Amino acid sequence: MLSFLLNKIIMALSFDYKFRVRYVDTDKMGIVHNSNYFRYFEMGRIELMRHLGVSYKTMEDKGIMMPLIEQYAKYLRPAYFDEELIVRTSLEEIPSVKIKFDYKVLRKKDNEEEVICQGYNILAFINENTRRPHQCPEWIKEKLKENFADL
Amino acid sequence: MLSFLLNKIIMALSFDYKFRVRYVDTDKMGIVHNSNYFRYFEMGRIELMRHLGVSYKTMEDKGIMMPLIEQYAKYLRPAYFDEELIVRTSLEEIPSVKIKFDYKVLRKKDNEEEVICQGYNILAFINENTRRPHQCPEWIKEKLKENFADL
Amino acid sequence: MLSFLLNKIIMALSFDYKFRVRYVDTDKMGIVHNSNYFRYFEMGRIELMRHLGVSYKTMEDKGIMMPLIEQYAKYLRPAYFDEELIVRTSLEEIPSVKIKFDYKVLRKKDNEEEVICQGYNILAFINENTRRPHQCPEWIKEKLKENFADL
Amino acid sequence: MLSFLLNKIIMALSFDYKFRVRYVDTDKMGIVHNSNYFRYFEMGRIELMRHLGVSYKTMEDKGIMMPLIEQYAKYLRPAYFDEELIVRTSLEEIPSVKIKFDYKVLRKKDNEEEVICQGYNILAFINENTRRPHQCPEWIKEKLKENFADL
Repeated sequence: MLSFLLNKIIMALSFDYKFRVRYVDTDKMGIVHNSNYFRYFEMGRIELMRHLGVSYKTMEDKGIMMPLIEQYAKYLRPAYFDEELIVRTSLEEIPSVKIKFDYKVLRKKDNEEEVICQGYNILAFINENTRRPHQCPEWIKEKLKENFADL
Repeated sequence: MLSFLLNKIIMALSFDYKFRVRYVDTDKMGIVHNSNYFRYFEMGRIELMRHLGVSYKTMEDKGIMMPLIEQYAKYLRPAYFDEELIVRTSLEEIPSVKIKFDYKVLRKKDNEEEVICQGYNILAFINENTRRPHQCPEWIKEKLKENFADL
Repeated sequence: MLSFLLNKIIMALSFDYKFRVRYVDTDKMGIVHNSNYFRYFEMGRIELMRHLGVSYKTMEDKGIMMPLIEQYAKYLRPAYFDEELIVRTSLEEIPSVKIKFDYKVLRKKDNEEEVICQGYNILAFINENTRRPHQCPEWIKEKLKENFADL
Repeated sequence: MLSFLLNKIIMALSFDYKFRVRYVDTDKMGIVHNSNYFRYFEMGRIELMRHLGVSYKTMEDKGIMMPLIEQYAKYLRPAYFDEELIVRTSLEEIPSVKIKFDYKVLRKKDNEEEVICQGYNILAFINENTRRPHQCPEWIKEKLKENFADL
């Protein structure tokens, strides 16, 4: 029962965003350039937050900035121009002064999923005026709780 | 005599900036992606202005923004990873509320120059606060005159 | 009658592709960087061709490359992070050894359309092996005719 | 004595490459976008290899590809438009089927060095034809030994 619940929670705090590989994203090796996966991570993160009802834009309008602290990617397979890929972003821990996102970039192939790249990043909450670290705003935590409550 | 002088003026208001093609600038065709030339134009423009004693950064610090109005590029030859190229930026007209820059991206080959891409762009002077068009600031015109005066 | 037909033809050879402005597409001015519009043009072109049944990828697989000859953009308004924009790509002339695409990047606002950027580009058909210019392949012309025939 | 030697070895296999932050590298936060540091890493890696006498281009011409396996970056401070930064790339282990590079992106300030970002990446040697992993080519190892021998 518990594992079933936990699974539901993780699914609730996970979001799949589909996108197409742009021509400009490839390099002379004929594959997606490594740096672009971090841009896909960013797209995924923004879409997960939108899905949770927390607009990245609103957050910035409220004077909260989220600079990156660290990030990591592991490259498992190449991806090619014009492919439809999915960036799956998940939130596995309650945020504090930091927030950690996990990512998988994958393709669907014959109903199977093939992971192309996986990674994570950690962001801080910063007050735009003071440029000091800041606890995760209450209204964001509320939004997260609402998503738990929906289960 | 006059053409000699004009030539000197144009040379004075022209600047060659050397750079190397990055791996990430290439695409799956194995050549520099077309959109990157506009980024090279930007580098050239900033370096010409630095050469004239007009720092782009200072200008932004003074509340002057220079949004692009229009731009054009003609692609004559491909460029490849790791090549050393030159972006030659020139200013052929005295700026008013707008300023026009001309560009050539070229390679040197056996003491000859091979033009890869040429183009231009037109920028406006905008007051950051009012977001309204603005005459080219006097201190920039002064800098341009100084460069003429050096001849 | 004729103008009605022409209008239908142009509509048939025009395609709207919706996309969202990525964070990384912005610059320190807080707006979409000028070079990115050429990347949006590329997305639009690829989607128009897909819509016409001409996959860019298939074309490359058949050994046809489409290098850019020239391109132009006029910037009318700024665009911002997270906005949903449309790139409208249209084909107004029958292609020969070259093909010209026209673009509008726009936002919908209260059922009105606001043009942010408009431009065009001209591409050549090149044989990958010989690297020589090439007439627009018959199967592409056939596809275009099919789209006319649908009217 | 040994530590002195080791220090010389590490210095020999380390290379500082100076570059200027481009306008397009910034985002709406007014700082260099996180994904660009991986592009700086790449520039640093290519320049270290050139310094060691191993051209990245030659390597690709010889049919050796070096896809990325994994990479990591830690962000310590923001960097701004027009700053002159240094990417310091170092090679601390003898390569096998993989090669690991360490990076620091830093600014010099009053003769002190301020680290902005540090990280690493691991690349594999792949045979272009077979697309299979490959030992680090002997001629590259020779080049590395030459650099040790110079001490």
